[in-house]
Amino acid sequence: MSRDEQFQSTALAMGYSFDGEIKIGGNYTSTVCDGRVVYLSGQIPRVGSTVVVTGRAGETVDLEGAKLGARICAMRALALLKQALGSLDAIERIAKVNVYVQSAADFSQQSEVADAASDLLHAILGPSGVHTRTSVGVFQLPKNATVELDLIAIASESP
Amino acid sequence: MSRDEQFQSTALAMGYSFDGEIKIGGNYTSTVCDGRVVYLSGQIPRVGSTVVVTGRAGETVDLEGAKLGARICAMRALALLKQALGSLDAIERIAKVNVYVQSAADFSQQSEVADAASDLLHAILGPSGVHTRTSVGVFQLPKNATVELDLIAIASESP
Amino acid sequence: MSRDEQFQSTALAMGYSFDGEIKIGGNYTSTVCDGRVVYLSGQIPRVGSTVVVTGRAGETVDLEGAKLGARICAMRALALLKQALGSLDAIERIAKVNVYVQSAADFSQQSEVADAASDLLHAILGPSGVHTRTSVGVFQLPKNATVELDLIAIASESP
Repeated sequence: MSRDEQFQSTALAMGYSFDGEIKIGGNYTSTVCDGRVVYLSGQIPRVGSTVVVTGRAGETVDLEGAKLGARICAMRALALLKQALGSLDAIERIAKVNVYVQSAADFSQQSEVADAASDLLHAILGPSGVHTRTSVGVFQLPKNATVELDLIAIASESP
Repeated sequence: MSRDEQFQSTALAMGYSFDGEIKIGGNYTSTVCDGRVVYLSGQIPRVGSTVVVTGRAGETVDLEGAKLGARICAMRALALLKQALGSLDAIERIAKVNVYVQSAADFSQQSEVADAASDLLHAILGPSGVHTRTSVGVFQLPKNATVELDLIAIASESP
Repeated sequence: MSRDEQFQSTALAMGYSFDGEIKIGGNYTSTVCDGRVVYLSGQIPRVGSTVVVTGRAGETVDLEGAKLGARICAMRALALLKQALGSLDAIERIAKVNVYVQSAADFSQQSEVADAASDLLHAILGPSGVHTRTSVGVFQLPKNATVELDLIAIASESP
């Protein structure tokens, strides 16, 4: 199965579609390519116009819920990379992933939440999906999202 | 109007001067250039030696106050890029902007705060100012600043 | 004294060993090199399998404790760069450092905490260790760590 097929199959299994145009407001954009380096805006677990996972991890959202949020963020990230590069096959490497988890005061499992995104990236991209990562617990995220994820990807060649 | 003139005109309209040497303490620096990639240290809304916007967004600072903070951070960022590159005309693209907002527990308008910085970058730099962005709500910022902003810029050529 | 000797001497003075293989779980990795750019995963103040500095700065951890945490993070970062590049002499520049401090609601000395890491990088790497930096106060860090640090380094040549 190609990476693009693997992506579609994962979306299907999750019960979400990431096919629609992902709109972004304001004077910023989803991806910026500088040569082979692709920067990605922070993604929250939004599907269409709905933020699917909101609330505070360890308080109103449990670990599994937060992990689902991380997976949706990662799928959005892949959808945007696919859009920017034409195909997920054009990704040479995911260089860096940042995962921000809206956390309760005593919630320290940010790494476990981030693992869900890391596992998904690896499942779809193989060794190219193995990245460096920073995960932190923040106080608030836009639209009360439970997770936000951004990344830097390296394309095989300049798009 | 050139970008540098646009910058001065914006500073004038805001009533602040960003002309003075921006000092930075410790064993770090404001900008590091690696080829055409320019890394920028996190900027808080400081003018001269005064942090102009302090406090927690959604608590002691309202949305408009936080937006002003974001605009001052963006102006500082531009002042430092101008200093590093000689002119804002040397900026090919703002690749990535990170906006950290010191937030109340129920404040979820980090994107709206960040929009103020994005709008300013676009107003002064045009399409070169359209960037990818991550905005999060943090618990505390240095010197009780309401906003902190850093970015990665791409210069037209190695400075 | 070479940088590698300086590193060992610093570790000795701190009373910690960073020689062991630093393991990392999940589908991510400690460093990713893209040409001369080296991305590093977020480091917490762990020595072996123990997180040495935990708790909230300004609450259960004082400034000195948090600074120690920052220094250990920086030593781990150097240990991983050494592992990736063969020697610290292969570092041309530390381009960017991010420091996340698990902070009490009224703790605003994130810059001072980060200074401990910046000073250490400068002490061991000299001018190559002078970097851009962003420090923020977050609500929670993985494993209740007091500090987390990541960075982007530039190698003299592609490893």
